[in-house]
Formats: sequence, structure tokens, C-alpha cells
Amino acid sequence: MTDKIALTPKTHTAPPARFSHGVRKGNILQVAGQVGFLPAEEGRPPTPAGPTLREQTLQTLANVEAILQEGGAAWDDVMMIRVYLTDVDHFAEMNEIYNAYFDEQGLTQPPAARTTVYVGLPAGLLVEIDALAVLG
Amino acid sequence: MTDKIALTPKTHTAPPARFSHGVRKGNILQVAGQVGFLPAEEGRPPTPAGPTLREQTLQTLANVEAILQEGGAAWDDVMMIRVYLTDVDHFAEMNEIYNAYFDEQGLTQPPAARTTVYVGLPAGLLVEIDALAVLG
Amino acid sequence: MTDKIALTPKTHTAPPARFSHGVRKGNILQVAGQVGFLPAEEGRPPTPAGPTLREQTLQTLANVEAILQEGGAAWDDVMMIRVYLTDVDHFAEMNEIYNAYFDEQGLTQPPAARTTVYVGLPAGLLVEIDALAVLG
Repeated sequence: MTDKIALTPKTHTAPPARFSHGVRKGNILQVAGQVGFLPAEEGRPPTPAGPTLREQTLQTLANVEAILQEGGAAWDDVMMIRVYLTDVDHFAEMNEIYNAYFDEQGLTQPPAARTTVYVGLPAGLLVEIDALAVLG
Repeated sequence: MTDKIALTPKTHTAPPARFSHGVRKGNILQVAGQVGFLPAEEGRPPTPAGPTLREQTLQTLANVEAILQEGGAAWDDVMMIRVYLTDVDHFAEMNEIYNAYFDEQGLTQPPAARTTVYVGLPAGLLVEIDALAVLG
Repeated sequence: MTDKIALTPKTHTAPPARFSHGVRKGNILQVAGQVGFLPAEEGRPPTPAGPTLREQTLQTLANVEAILQEGGAAWDDVMMIRVYLTDVDHFAEMNEIYNAYFDEQGLTQPPAARTTVYVGLPAGLLVEIDALAVLG
């Protein structure tokens, strides 16, 4: 039997419920929905990187990446990225930030597939992202 | 070629369309979006376990588990749980129910990753959950 | 190391951001969120198949299928289909279209699992669909 390994980067606040920020089992790695919280500081509640879509999107992508790395994966291993926005009018700006971010990653494999939909999120949060990776 | 097997617990009402409640192929098991419908009774239309978030969440988790078991899997095999709520104000209560439920499952592996977003659901339904498992 | 292959059917317009319409790595194939855009024509912006749920759903399913085929897969390989609608009142009609479509596909395996939720989509779009397939 292959173990399922919890992926818990030191930068992350404790999940608000009984779930893992990420799990890996064999060559499959699943990243839980990440939002734009800054790296955890003891005694500080989860704090968004800022009020803007740009700040939150970049922090969210950094949080996803930290989990991938904790599991021995990289963006090149990611098959699917799900982006949840709260406002259709944020689509163009999110894409701009997303493209610039991935341009800087030096990917050697094609980019992941993606689905973007518009949902409700907790107050103050503009973006949530999760990811599925296949390693090896 | 590995067969894709439909997972259809006896407790479940017929799907309202041409989809399977769950499928397994090799070591991958996918559970379709479940809601809080009570076990099927002949001649009765699909009936929610009750109007409250608690009743529906517990029934939904039971429905997911029935499909996992039908496919020879258990909660320990689950990599990702997607929770769809209709109201941001339900988050804290859902987490409380979710945590208590999983505390009772006696997991021997880390909990699954999770994404929670807020969407529209058919009238009367407060929660929908699907799950991806990797066996073995 | 197994390559991740981008799946880009000739019928598809360029993605509006740095993602792939679909990717395959080993036996896992992920289709990005598809909408009801007609096959690409040079010089024409992405154009929905029509304003109705029927036109858009059928075109969306055709767009998903094109990506599956580009990756050497078929509907029989699909484990999970995620359907995003904008209006709960569209559920019955979408199911009717969905069932008729899959009745015509001559599936030899059980149908995929499915989750349907109601979200916001860009103006004019009534449905978005993505899919996860396991080949072999």
C-alpha cells in the first residue's frame, strides 16, 4: 500500500478544518484550494497579502507552489489549475497576472489546463486556486 | 484495457441523467457530486435528509462514503474533497460538522485536500460534495 | 520522466491565457474548461455557437471531445465531467441535451461521474464543461 502524505509547508497557517493543504500518493499530488494569505506568523490570524486582485493572485500562486514543492513537484507537473474568481470583470486582469507569473517560471513542459468560474468566496478574498499534479 | 466500473450503491436513487454516481478505473475512483438525499425508497422522489445544513452535510458524506465503499475504497484513499455551499455564512458550521464526522472515521492516513466554494444549488439543497480517490 | 503533452485541436481558438486546452501525461488526460465557441476562423474573435443552452451545450461537448481525441482518448475514457451552468432552471434542459448526446455516442463503458453547479460565467455564455479521463 502506498502512503498518502500530507503536504504542509512551514509558510502555511493551519487549515481551518480537518483537511490537508495538499496530499501526495504515488505520482498523484492534489493541492487544496489556496487563497492569498501571507506566510503564517505565530499569533496572527490568516491575513490576505492585500486587498487587490494582483496581490492576492500572486500570493495564492506562491501558496500553491509551496505545496507542490513540499511534495517534490513543480509547476511543470501540474495538469489542472482551477481558478475561482468572484467577479467576471476580474478575468482579464487575472489572466495578465497569471501569464506574467508563468512567463517567469521557465516552464519546460506545456502549461496546465485550466477552468475559471465565478463563485462566492469569504469576505475580502477575490481569488482561490487549486491544482492537480501528476509527477514523474 | 482496464474496465471503467460504475459504482451504484443500493441506497442511491437513479441519477437524474446519463452519469454514474461513481466510477473506478484501475486505482482511480471518482465520486460524482452528492447531495443530502436520503436512501432511495421505491415510489418516493429524491428527498433531502432535512432542511438543515447539519442533516444535509451528514447525509451527503454518507452518500459519498457509500460510493467509495462500493468501489472498494475508504475515506483514507480520498485525495480531494470538493465542498459546494450556497452561503458563506455556512462555512464555520460546515467545518464543525465536517471535523466531527472525520474525527469519528478513525483515519489512519492524513485527511484529503479540500476546496470549498459558494455556488448556486437546486432549491432546498445547501451542500454538494464530490471526491477523488486513489487506491492501493 | 513522462512528457506532459499539450492537446490543441485545430478547431480551437488560442487560449486567452497561458494554459492548455488539454494536457495528457501518461494515462491521465485533463480537459480545460470548454465553452460553446464555434471552431476557430482566422480573424474572427471567439464566437458562441448561438444564444441558446442547446446550441452552447452541444458545441461545448464537441469541443471537449475534440480535445479528448487529440489526446487519443474517447468519451469512454472519461471519469469525471464538471458542468457549470449559470441558472438552476437550466438543469432539466441540460440533462435532456446531455442524455441525447451520450445516447448517440455508443459508449461501451459506464458514463462518467458528474458534478453540476451554478456559477457566474462571462456574458453570453450559459455553460462550461471540463473533464478528466484515464486512458488504457
